[in-house]
Amino acid sequence: MIYPPALLRLIEALRCLPGVGPKSAQRMAFHLLEKDRDGAVLLADSLRQAVGGIGRCRRCRMFAQAQMCPICASNSRDASTLCVVESPADVAAIEQSGSYRGTYFVLMGHLSPLDGIGPDELGFAQLEALFAQGDIQEVILATNATVEGDATAHVIAELALRHQVKPSRIAHGVPVGGELEYVDGGTLAHALAGRHTLGR
Amino acid sequence: MIYPPALLRLIEALRCLPGVGPKSAQRMAFHLLEKDRDGAVLLADSLRQAVGGIGRCRRCRMFAQAQMCPICASNSRDASTLCVVESPADVAAIEQSGSYRGTYFVLMGHLSPLDGIGPDELGFAQLEALFAQGDIQEVILATNATVEGDATAHVIAELALRHQVKPSRIAHGVPVGGELEYVDGGTLAHALAGRHTLGR
Ligand SMILES: [Zn+2]
Ligand SMILES: [Zn+2]
Repeated sequence: MIYPPALLRLIEALRCLPGVGPKSAQRMAFHLLEKDRDGAVLLADSLRQAVGGIGRCRRCRMFAQAQMCPICASNSRDASTLCVVESPADVAAIEQSGSYRGTYFVLMGHLSPLDGIGPDELGFAQLEALFAQGDIQEVILATNATVEGDATAHVIAELALRHQVKPSRIAHGVPVGGELEYVDGGTLAHALAGRHTLGR
Repeated sequence: MIYPPALLRLIEALRCLPGVGPKSAQRMAFHLLEKDRDGAVLLADSLRQAVGGIGRCRRCRMFAQAQMCPICASNSRDASTLCVVESPADVAAIEQSGSYRGTYFVLMGHLSPLDGIGPDELGFAQLEALFAQGDIQEVILATNATVEGDATAHVIAELALRHQVKPSRIAHGVPVGGELEYVDGGTLAHALAGRHTLGR
């Protein structure tokens, strides 16, 4: 191969990005080297700072630069209500709707046995420990309105009931089959208000 | 915004990549932080090393880690034939076809006045200086078989004729409207062999 080794390594390294195959990686590398070397340096710095500085909130698993995220660390949030979501993007979407004052738990995915994603990967033990503490009265299951999101919500509802925590599912209003993070704030507010209790 | 500052900066920095909008940038950042922190560190290092180590060959403008690329520095290449291409990927494709022993000139684009890409951006002065040196007998115009690639080839042909260099256009065989870098080696070998002289 006629490319310099550092270029080959860059093309290879860009393939760690999701959805980037060999041709896109090459196009990205050429673009950076030809037209945006400042952008490349900034990206390198941002990657290092993100990897070095960002962990997970130890209560809710949200990305955080401190041990607790600002929501869990705040004393103006209602700690008796916990909203369980699949992704940090869902926390951002619900916060932007301005319709929720409780706290969160971020699964970072949904149950997906074929992909090896089970209770351990989603932090169910940590979630159960929160239920066991006794502060949480209600858990709002705001996983996506997909088959996997519904299944995950049902498993967590069982877990909550075992600890006398009331599970509720975010109301429809979120388009069925839709991804939570793409829903507008008004719809999210409506869906939160119209939640219904799950129980036996 | 509820994301930690370092995450916001990473999402913003990823947008320097071509074809990456806000949602893809967010998905990429989440993926790296959740599942591939080693990949992120490797990417940061590769970016720094590429930006620090890769320049352009001072003869042919190919990406190179030394002042001259290995092809221009080699004394086993035929310096009397110069093949003009749009992109470093085209050099790689022609080299892989194993059908060419001359040298190259990499335009890094094609004439595109609406995008502000003219003779200066494509190194025409440098190309003319090569013609003026008198070593080059023939220039093979292997720009893409597109309207812009053809136009660029014709302008360079005029330049070559002014310096008593014989211009030729890579033969059809490369699919019309096609991008050179996606063509297989056999087709490229055929197209190079079937080139025809451009002249007045
Ligand atoms: Zn938290
Ligand atoms: Zn060179």
